[in-house]
Amino acid sequence: MEPPAPSTDMPQDPPAPRRRPGGRTARVRALVHGAVREQLVAEGYDGLTVDAVAARSGVHRTTVYRRWRDVGGLLADVLDSAADDGWAPPDTGSLEGDLTALNEEVAAGLTEDPPIAMALIAASFRSPEAAEALRRFWDDRYRRCAPVVERAAARGELPGAATDDRALLVAATAPVYHRLALLRAPADPALPATAARTAALAAGAGAFAVPG
Amino acid sequence: MEPPAPSTDMPQDPPAPRRRPGGRTARVRALVHGAVREQLVAEGYDGLTVDAVAARSGVHRTTVYRRWRDVGGLLADVLDSAADDGWAPPDTGSLEGDLTALNEEVAAGLTEDPPIAMALIAASFRSPEAAEALRRFWDDRYRRCAPVVERAAARGELPGAATDDRALLVAATAPVYHRLALLRAPADPALPATAARTAALAAGAGAFAVPG
Repeated sequence: MEPPAPSTDMPQDPPAPRRRPGGRTARVRALVHGAVREQLVAEGYDGLTVDAVAARSGVHRTTVYRRWRDVGGLLADVLDSAADDGWAPPDTGSLEGDLTALNEEVAAGLTEDPPIAMALIAASFRSPEAAEALRRFWDDRYRRCAPVVERAAARGELPGAATDDRALLVAATAPVYHRLALLRAPADPALPATAARTAALAAGAGAFAVPG
Repeated sequence: MEPPAPSTDMPQDPPAPRRRPGGRTARVRALVHGAVREQLVAEGYDGLTVDAVAARSGVHRTTVYRRWRDVGGLLADVLDSAADDGWAPPDTGSLEGDLTALNEEVAAGLTEDPPIAMALIAASFRSPEAAEALRRFWDDRYRRCAPVVERAAARGELPGAATDDRALLVAATAPVYHRLALLRAPADPALPATAARTAALAAGAGAFAVPG
């Protein structure tokens, strides 16, 4: 199970993607992605240059420039590579349980050491391409979480009307992102469950019902 | 009424503070704060230097260095100055109404042009002092919002048990921050009210009750 935070969605050795040339190309990509993450954590965005990534990865700089062009291209590809993984949301048997487990993953991603997720979020404030890639990443993750809401509806945990799954999922996870990524407050071990319970209660009361 | 987003909390001409020397010192501070905001919006964090701020403000650079030391000191003082204003949360007569009005202010701050609030948030990922000042700023704002929850309790909108006002306020505002500051999705005019209704429903159902 992988979190909707960017971090652990980018394993050091990603599984072989399906529709992309494997072999050397895939190995080069994995080496370069690993170097981007290491460089970002070690030196921050200011130390993230194509040359530094090339040196750290052992891949020839001409290759890196040709394939990724610049820092924005590197960050976007690292984030986009997360879409290749097999992540699926937790299935605990209840809406509150699923949302709690999801929030635990988000919190773990945002507080992990080295802080790759936070470094990627920070980079998204500097590079429009990274910001766009991060948006795509979160879109993909929230889309994959739709079954959490569908299962809750099937179990009768939601009112009869259709539920706006995205609004429910954002409401459930936003307090965790807000506390850790923006307020930069210390981790609160109770927050994943509290935020999940809040969203589940609101959902049960019809807060995310789609009109019509 | 001023938003809990940093932006409009820092007017170009702040009212005279109570316990700080007025006159020249206050004028210099206002000039320098204005220059920090303008420079941040015009050139981003990378263009924010003590020398650039001094040049833009017309204040002698020796004065700026002596009083603010570095970029972190400048950003922290700009954010801390927001604590001097007379901001109070909206009072609309209902919890959902107050939270909606609060969220409208947050959304307005995060989407205003020039994007001062977003520039300050971006800077907080680069400067530990700015991050700490932003945390203090939000702490102050959430603290000032406690009457929203107290009034709701007095009106009987909350269950009998004591309510964790900070948790309720974070839950109400977090989706707006999440969408605009992290997901960087287009503004959704319905979100302030939706997020407010969600939090109010959850609060009424006891989601933020303090045990004991």
